[in-house]
Amino acid sequence: MSSGETELVRYFAAKGKLNAVRFPIGIGDDMAQIKLPKGNSVLITTDMLLDGVHFDTRKATLEQIGYKSMAASLSDCAAMATIPLAAVVSVALPRQPRGLKPTLLKLHRGILAAAKKYNCPLIGGDMTSWNKPLAVSVAMLSTVGKTKPVKRSTAKTGDVICVTGTLGGSLAGKHLSFEPRIKEALAIAEAGVNSMMDISDGLSTDLNHICRLSKKGAIVEADKIPVSRNAGNLNNALNDGEDFELLFTMPQKKFERLKKHWRFKVKLTAIGKIIGGHSVKIEMADGKVFDLLPKGYDHLRSS
Amino acid sequence: MSSGETELVRYFAAKGKLNAVRFPIGIGDDMAQIKLPKGNSVLITTDMLLDGVHFDTRKATLEQIGYKSMAASLSDCAAMATIPLAAVVSVALPRQPRGLKPTLLKLHRGILAAAKKYNCPLIGGDMTSWNKPLAVSVAMLSTVGKTKPVKRSTAKTGDVICVTGTLGGSLAGKHLSFEPRIKEALAIAEAGVNSMMDISDGLSTDLNHICRLSKKGAIVEADKIPVSRNAGNLNNALNDGEDFELLFTMPQKKFERLKKHWRFKVKLTAIGKIIGGHSVKIEMADGKVFDLLPKGYDHLRSS
Repeated sequence: MSSGETELVRYFAAKGKLNAVRFPIGIGDDMAQIKLPKGNSVLITTDMLLDGVHFDTRKATLEQIGYKSMAASLSDCAAMATIPLAAVVSVALPRQPRGLKPTLLKLHRGILAAAKKYNCPLIGGDMTSWNKPLAVSVAMLSTVGKTKPVKRSTAKTGDVICVTGTLGGSLAGKHLSFEPRIKEALAIAEAGVNSMMDISDGLSTDLNHICRLSKKGAIVEADKIPVSRNAGNLNNALNDGEDFELLFTMPQKKFERLKKHWRFKVKLTAIGKIIGGHSVKIEMADGKVFDLLPKGYDHLRSS
Repeated sequence: MSSGETELVRYFAAKGKLNAVRFPIGIGDDMAQIKLPKGNSVLITTDMLLDGVHFDTRKATLEQIGYKSMAASLSDCAAMATIPLAAVVSVALPRQPRGLKPTLLKLHRGILAAAKKYNCPLIGGDMTSWNKPLAVSVAMLSTVGKTKPVKRSTAKTGDVICVTGTLGGSLAGKHLSFEPRIKEALAIAEAGVNSMMDISDGLSTDLNHICRLSKKGAIVEADKIPVSRNAGNLNNALNDGEDFELLFTMPQKKFERLKKHWRFKVKLTAIGKIIGGHSVKIEMADGKVFDLLPKGYDHLRSS
């Protein structure tokens, strides 16, 4: 689910007040949680991906688009440290002289590749067509692992702020082929994480989400941010969207233990601290401190 | 979920072979079923509704479009005789000079109206925008009631074929304001139904689905079909889409008992019988018999 659209998300959450027993996690996190009888629960997320916004059918293959559509929701499952269960996909296909079948088969191949790789079978869907560009909507279910689902709103003062991988420049290619950090997220949760989300709107925006929801502040050290080769500079690493890396906070000691036993290829980096107050700041290499404002891509502001 | 697209649905089902224990009902029915630990299970459906295809933003209000989007998935819950649990909605909003908020608030009002009326809260979603028409995708979860979920593929020879309400002419208005037959479906299932689906692609198409999946034939009596006032004639009642009424089959005696104890406003009509073989036929008032072919709206053929 998208992390932006703050004001409206709050409005929707207030309007459709949920029963907190049946729905322990509702509107505003990466996934919503539904309690079932006998202590079971499932989580659900949905993502809409559009031609010209989230992919470009002139540049990406349909297999890549299918893969990315699934991977975006898989990344939401990772963000909560939950285990993917199954997906349904609805598509709006552009009508074409040679029919819809070629498009659908290629898209399906990419969806299936992600479904198999992350053990999240495609169990249903809906196909429609129109004289407009391709739109793909995925809804995905997950179950809890050994820990409770990890929320955005539970960062604690003193936590170190950490990220997986490197940030920025995703549009150069990573945004089509990224690997949702599912196993990594489960390991991070078991190590005792306090809050987590996936970085979809850029670090600057998404860290502001965690702080706002947790009613905390943060201080980030600019020279610790792992800038990706494709990002080129700090600004891009802070503000580019679609990194699909994990952003999480946990006590310093637990993070050190996590790093010691880390058995995954992707690297872990501590980039700052959760502090009191409610402002998110960045300390530059020269010691100057600035406000770190949300500058990532916000779907509603972009219009 | 859409009932058409037969050939491709079969291809997808074959390609993504599901574990029948974890997923007792998979691709090709109104909903897919997921088994959870401790005997629990949930069902899921998804529907994509597009401007110019499933609604027309020049004729329908955004509240109506929001309501219809939810009601289409609620009708899938009814089709399986299951109880709606929760929904997530992803939307692609056309960018507008006055911003997206007015559109979103009206759409949300319609979604919430359906959510409240049918006790199926909106628990999450995704908002994106583009310079293209409105697309709304709903994913909905449901749970089993007192009976197992009712499938399309389990019609028995000798069953009477029945429908709720009247058929055809939905585009005159009903398609925006129909009432998903959830309570009715639960009562029908408890009375001992053998197969059921909701009529979304027109009776002629959807009865062919039940027969094909059940490996049965059918004979329908033309003068028993409840033609709606807006349909005007038999052809429209057979082939118009979006009736969102229930089509079901059950033993004659059980149907008589069901009718006797029926406590809902919507009427029940027996329109024919399930027979051996695999052809679906219609007997006209003059005694002539024709093949009843799928003529409802098929999204893939229409392209």
